[in-house]
Amino acid sequence: MPAASSKKVAMDGNEAVARIAYAVNDVIAIYPITPASPMGEWSDMWASQAKPNVWGHVPHIVEMQSEAGAAGAVHGSLQAGALTTTFTASQGLLLMIPNMYKIAGELTPMVMHVAARSVATHALSIFGDQSDVMSVRSTGFALLASNSVQEAMDMALIAQRATLESRVPFIHFFDGFRTSHEINKIDVVDKACVQEMLPEAAVYAHRNRALSPDNPVLRGTAQNPDAFFQSREACNPFYLSCPEIVESSMQRFAGLSGRNYQLFEYSGDENAEVVFVLMGSGVGAIKETLPHFHAQGKQVGCLAVRLYRPFSITHFIAALPQSVKTLVVLDRTKEPGSVGEPLYLDIVSALQEGDRQSVKCFGGRYGLSSKEFTPAMVKGILETLEAGKLPKHFTIGIHDDVTHTSVAFDKSFHLEDKDTVRALFYGLGSDGTVGANKNTIKIIGEKTDLYTQGYFVYDSKKAGSITVSHLRFGPKPIDSSYLIQEANIVACHQFPFLEKIDVLETIQSGGIFLLNSPHDAASVWEHLPHKVQKTILDKQLTFYVIDAFKIAKEVGMGNRINTIMQTCFFAVSNILPEATVIAEIKQAIKKTYGKRGLSVIERNNQAVDLTLENLHQVQVPKKVTAHSNGHRWVPESAPDFVQSVTSKFLAGRGEDLPVSAMPVDGTYPTGTAQYERRGIADEV
Amino acid sequence: MPAASSKKVAMDGNEAVARIAYAVNDVIAIYPITPASPMGEWSDMWASQAKPNVWGHVPHIVEMQSEAGAAGAVHGSLQAGALTTTFTASQGLLLMIPNMYKIAGELTPMVMHVAARSVATHALSIFGDQSDVMSVRSTGFALLASNSVQEAMDMALIAQRATLESRVPFIHFFDGFRTSHEINKIDVVDKACVQEMLPEAAVYAHRNRALSPDNPVLRGTAQNPDAFFQSREACNPFYLSCPEIVESSMQRFAGLSGRNYQLFEYSGDENAEVVFVLMGSGVGAIKETLPHFHAQGKQVGCLAVRLYRPFSITHFIAALPQSVKTLVVLDRTKEPGSVGEPLYLDIVSALQEGDRQSVKCFGGRYGLSSKEFTPAMVKGILETLEAGKLPKHFTIGIHDDVTHTSVAFDKSFHLEDKDTVRALFYGLGSDGTVGANKNTIKIIGEKTDLYTQGYFVYDSKKAGSITVSHLRFGPKPIDSSYLIQEANIVACHQFPFLEKIDVLETIQSGGIFLLNSPHDAASVWEHLPHKVQKTILDKQLTFYVIDAFKIAKEVGMGNRINTIMQTCFFAVSNILPEATVIAEIKQAIKKTYGKRGLSVIERNNQAVDLTLENLHQVQVPKKVTAHSNGHRWVPESAPDFVQSVTSKFLAGRGEDLPVSAMPVDGTYPTGTAQYERRGIADEV
Repeated sequence: MPAASSKKVAMDGNEAVARIAYAVNDVIAIYPITPASPMGEWSDMWASQAKPNVWGHVPHIVEMQSEAGAAGAVHGSLQAGALTTTFTASQGLLLMIPNMYKIAGELTPMVMHVAARSVATHALSIFGDQSDVMSVRSTGFALLASNSVQEAMDMALIAQRATLESRVPFIHFFDGFRTSHEINKIDVVDKACVQEMLPEAAVYAHRNRALSPDNPVLRGTAQNPDAFFQSREACNPFYLSCPEIVESSMQRFAGLSGRNYQLFEYSGDENAEVVFVLMGSGVGAIKETLPHFHAQGKQVGCLAVRLYRPFSITHFIAALPQSVKTLVVLDRTKEPGSVGEPLYLDIVSALQEGDRQSVKCFGGRYGLSSKEFTPAMVKGILETLEAGKLPKHFTIGIHDDVTHTSVAFDKSFHLEDKDTVRALFYGLGSDGTVGANKNTIKIIGEKTDLYTQGYFVYDSKKAGSITVSHLRFGPKPIDSSYLIQEANIVACHQFPFLEKIDVLETIQSGGIFLLNSPHDAASVWEHLPHKVQKTILDKQLTFYVIDAFKIAKEVGMGNRINTIMQTCFFAVSNILPEATVIAEIKQAIKKTYGKRGLSVIERNNQAVDLTLENLHQVQVPKKVTAHSNGHRWVPESAPDFVQSVTSKFLAGRGEDLPVSAMPVDGTYPTGTAQYERRGIADEV
Repeated sequence: MPAASSKKVAMDGNEAVARIAYAVNDVIAIYPITPASPMGEWSDMWASQAKPNVWGHVPHIVEMQSEAGAAGAVHGSLQAGALTTTFTASQGLLLMIPNMYKIAGELTPMVMHVAARSVATHALSIFGDQSDVMSVRSTGFALLASNSVQEAMDMALIAQRATLESRVPFIHFFDGFRTSHEINKIDVVDKACVQEMLPEAAVYAHRNRALSPDNPVLRGTAQNPDAFFQSREACNPFYLSCPEIVESSMQRFAGLSGRNYQLFEYSGDENAEVVFVLMGSGVGAIKETLPHFHAQGKQVGCLAVRLYRPFSITHFIAALPQSVKTLVVLDRTKEPGSVGEPLYLDIVSALQEGDRQSVKCFGGRYGLSSKEFTPAMVKGILETLEAGKLPKHFTIGIHDDVTHTSVAFDKSFHLEDKDTVRALFYGLGSDGTVGANKNTIKIIGEKTDLYTQGYFVYDSKKAGSITVSHLRFGPKPIDSSYLIQEANIVACHQFPFLEKIDVLETIQSGGIFLLNSPHDAASVWEHLPHKVQKTILDKQLTFYVIDAFKIAKEVGMGNRINTIMQTCFFAVSNILPEATVIAEIKQAIKKTYGKRGLSVIERNNQAVDLTLENLHQVQVPKKVTAHSNGHRWVPESAPDFVQSVTSKFLAGRGEDLPVSAMPVDGTYPTGTAQYERRGIADEV
C-alpha cells in the first residue's frame, strides 16, 4: 500500500470544527450538550495545554451555568471586541434565542457552531435533525450548512471570514452525530490558510467597535414607536450584501485549498427534470444515487442549499437547470400545523419570485432524530413521483399507517461500493469495541492512502447496551451518509447477541464473519442459532472464531477483549501486513494505557501475541443442524403493549414499528423496565 | 341620551382577556412583562379578593422568577391535570420556547395569552408588533389572532374550548398596546356563556391525563432514532382536525353570543381583484378604508387570518373571492435574510397548493413596534399597486431612503367619522391626565349608549414625558385601530407645550381648543406662539382657557389639575348634561380618593365647583400678532447628530426621521442626555 498523505487526517466533525473555531477566536463560551459537547471539550483541553490560536495567544474558555449564560457571555464578550464563539444544539440553542436577536440586531460578527439535533417534543432525543436550527431562522443569524466532515472544517473557516466582512452573525451547522461524530479522513486546513482567510481590516473594525471608556458609545437603547421601524430597516444593506460576501469567501478559500463551494451547489444531470433540494448530510445519499439514476436514463439532480440565510433568490435560480420541472424539497424537521416545512416554503416563494412558478414542488420530511436516509429512500421517492403517487407533503423512512404520508421504498436496494471494505462490529457499551475501532481507523488512515469512515451507533443509555460500529475503508472518498447497508465483514464481540439480534442481517454473500465464542472451532456450530447457521451456509461466509475472554483472563485482563478483537479484525480483513498491524496496535496500547503502568501494557501486548494462534477458521458443515427459534424478548405473560411495542425496541427492531404503534403524546405504560432487564447486559 | 346597555362595559384588551382566562383556569403562572403585565395583575388582584372561577374555586396564582420559570410551572401544572394559563410577550415568550415544544409535543391543552410585542434587536422596545409570536410558530402551538378588544375577550374563550377539544395548545395573541391597552366599550361575555363553552368531557379527559401515582404512566421519555420519527408523526390527526374544531367552537360561540367569527374572515367587495391579507389590529384600518375604495369604484377586500396555525389551506381558499388577482400580504414583523416574512411565505404556498397560483403576491412590513397603520397607508399601498410601482417586498409607514422599500402615502388623508367625537389631551406623565381620561370614558360609557375608545400614548419612560390621550365617542362602533388623525377637540393641559410641540397639528376646522393657561382670556393671545395663533385663526377654532393651576392651588391641591381639566372637557364638549357630569365626577373622586380621607375629597369637589366659573371663551382677535419662531430644542453648539437626530426625538418628530438617519446597529453617540434635559419636565 502507498504511504498516507501527510495532509489527510481522520477526525470527526466536532474536532474538525473545533480546530478552526479554536484557531480564530479569543473567547469561547461553552456549555455541554450532546452532540456538540466535544467541540467544547477539545477547546477546553487545548487551552489547558496552552495551545495558541492564530494570533499567538490562548483563547479564554469560559464554562457557564447553562446555554442561556453562554449566550450572555458571548454577547458581552463580543461587545468587548473579542472574537467569540460557542457550540451548542437543540434546547441549548433555544436558550440562546433572546441574545441571538440582540447580537444580530447589533450587526455583531460571530460564528456559532451547531451540531444540529432534535428539539424535545413528545420525547427528548439526543439525535440529529435540523429542528433546532430551523427554530432560530427568525433571529437574523445567517445559516450556513455543512454536509460532511470535510465541509464542516472548511465552512467553519469560510463562515468566519464572511461574518467579519458582512457583520451578519452566522450559525454554521452540520447534522448531529452523522457529521459531528462521523470519523472521516479529511484534508486538514493548515494555519497559513486560516491566516489568509482572516480579513485583517474587518477584525480590526470589530475590535474597534468594542464598548470602551476611551471611545464611549451608547448601544442597546430602548426605542419608541417613532424610530424603531426605521432603525430596524437600517440593517438591510448588510443582509443584501451578505450572500456575495459568502461567495467571495468561498472563492478565496478555493484559491487557497483547491476545494470549491457555492451558495447553492448543483450536482447531477445538466438537463434534469427532477431535482432534490436539501441541506446537510442527506446530500451525500442523494449524490451517491444520481449515477444510478443516470445509468437508468433518468434526468435527476441535487441542489444542496449551503447558505440558507440570507437566502439569495438570484443564486438559487441561477443554480437550477432550465430544464427542471419538479423540485422535491426535503426538510429534516417537522413544524406541526404549518403550510409546509421551512425549506419547502422558502423554495416555493423563491420559485415564484424567480419567475420559475411553473416548477412543481413537493415537500418531504426525512431523517428526524437521526432516522436513516439512504439511496433506497431516494429511489423510493423518485419512483413514487414517477408513478404520479407522491403526496404534496410526504415522509420517507417510516411507515405512516395513520395519516398515510409515508412513501414506500425497497429496503434491499443499496449502492455500497464494491472496492470499499465495509465492516460491522457488534459490541457492548463500555466493552472497548468502539474505542478499538476508532484506533483501527487511525492506524489505517495513517498507514495507507485509503479513505476511511467510522460511525458508531449506541442508544442514549450507552453503558450496557449494544454498540454497532460501522467502518468503511477504500480507495475512493467515502460520502455515504448512512449506516452500512451491505457488510463484507461482520464481527460479533459478544456470543449471546446471536440469540437476540440478527447480526448477519446485512452481510454480503462470501463475506467474513468473526465471532468471539466460548466454543472452539470444532464445536461452535452446534451452539449457533438456526438463523445464523442458515445465513452462513446460504451466503457462503468465511467464518472465524476466537475465545477472546479466555485469552483476556489468561493474561490477567479480566473482560477487556478490545485489543484482541482488533487484532483479529486486521488478521481476517488483510488490509495491512501482519507485522505492521502488530507494531501499530502495540504502539496504540502504549499510548492508551501508558499512564496505568507497565504491567497493563505488558498484559495487552501478551494478549495481542496470543491472538493469532487462537484465531481459527471454522470448517462449516454442509447443512443447518439447529432447531432454535430465536430469542423470546419478553415472556408470554407480558402485557399487550410490551408484546407488540417494547419487545421490538428490545430486539433492536424499533424501526419496524409503524406510526399507529406509537403513543400520540409520548405517554407510555409503566413497569416495562422489568422486561428490558431481561435483555443484554446481565447475561454477559 | 338613551341609557347604556347593561351588557356593555368599557375595558382594555388585557382586562377583557384576563376575565376569561381567570374564569376558566385552575392555575395561572405569571411573570410581568410589558404590555402583558396587567393580565397577571388583574388575576392576582381577583385571587386576593377570593373571586372564584367558573368551577367555584379561586385559581392558584404563582409568580415565578422569570418567564422561563413560568413556562416550567405551566408545564408541570398541566401535567398535574390543572387547567393552566400564563400571559407574556416579547423576550418573555422566547424564554418559554423549550417548554412550549414539550407542551405541544405532549398534546396538552392550554391557552397562553400574548400581548404581541417587538423582540429586542438593535434596540429594546416595549411596543407592539408580532415578531414575538412569529418566532414561536415552529413550536406546534396553534396561533389564534384577535384584532380588537371585543375579539380579544371572545377569542380567549373560543381558544379555550378549541384547545380542550383538539388537545393542541394555543397561543391567543393580540397587538400589544393597540389592543392590550386600548379601552373600548364591548359586550361582556357572561358566566353562562363561559360555562356553555367549556366542553365537560374534554375537561375531564385533561384532568384524567394527570400524572398520578394512582394511575401511573410514563411521559417525557428519551427516544432513539428507531422510534422518534414515527412518534413525531403520530400527532398529525390532532393538527388536521384542529381547524374544524376551532370553527365549531366559533359556531357554538355565535349561537351563544350572536358574534360570528371564522378561521379566515373576508370583508369587502365580493368581486374584489385586490385583497389585503393580515392579522391583528391592522385589520381595523383596512376595513375602515374599504368603503372609501368602494365609493371610488375599486374592487378591494380584506382577508383577516384568524387561525394562523394550524393553517387550513381549504378554509383559506374558500374565503378568497374567485375574482382575486392580487394579494397584498402584510406582516407585522421582520425576519432579516428570509425570502419573505412568515405570513407572506405561507400565503404564497397556500395559493400554490390551493390551485390559485396565478394570484400575484406582494409582501409588506408594517407597524413594527407600534408604528401607526392608517387608512392613508392602506390607500398609499393600493395606489402604488395600481400604478404598477409596488415592490414585491415593501415597507409602509416609514421613509426608507436607503434600500428604497417604502411606499409613499398622503399623510393628510383620513377617514375620521364625522359623528364621532375625537378628543386629544396633552398632559405630562404623572400629572393625572391619563387617569382622568380613563374616568371620562367610564362615565360616558355608563351614562350613554355611545361607543367609546381610549388610547394613551407615552414613551417608555413614563414620568416626566408628554402623554397624549386619544378619546373617541360616538353612536357607531369604533374600529379605528390608530391614533386620532383629525381631532375636533384638543385640550392642552400644560401651557409650555405650545412652544415645543404642535398640539393643534391635527385639529379640524371649527374645532374646540381648551388650554390650561396662566394668562386669562383677555391676555392669553399675546402669549401664544405664532403657529398657535395662526392655526386658531385659519381653522376658526373655538378657544377656551382656564387657569387650572391657580384653582388647584386655591383649594390646596398643589399641582393636581386632572379633575379640573376633566370638568372643563365635559363643559366644552357638551356630551352630557352639566348636572350629570358634576355628579359623576364627584362620584369618581369619592371612589378614587376615598382612602385618602375626607379633606382630599372635599378639595377635589371644591375644585370641580370652581371650574366652570373660571372657564372662559377667548375672544379671538382678527390677526396673528406673534413673531415667535418656535422652540429651539437643542443649542446651536450641539453636535451634528444631536442637531439632526436627537432634536427630532425631543420635538416628538422622530417619525420624520428616514432610515438613513438611524445608526445601522443601534449604536448612538453618548452625552446627548444633556440636551434631553432641556426638554419638558424641568420647565413645568
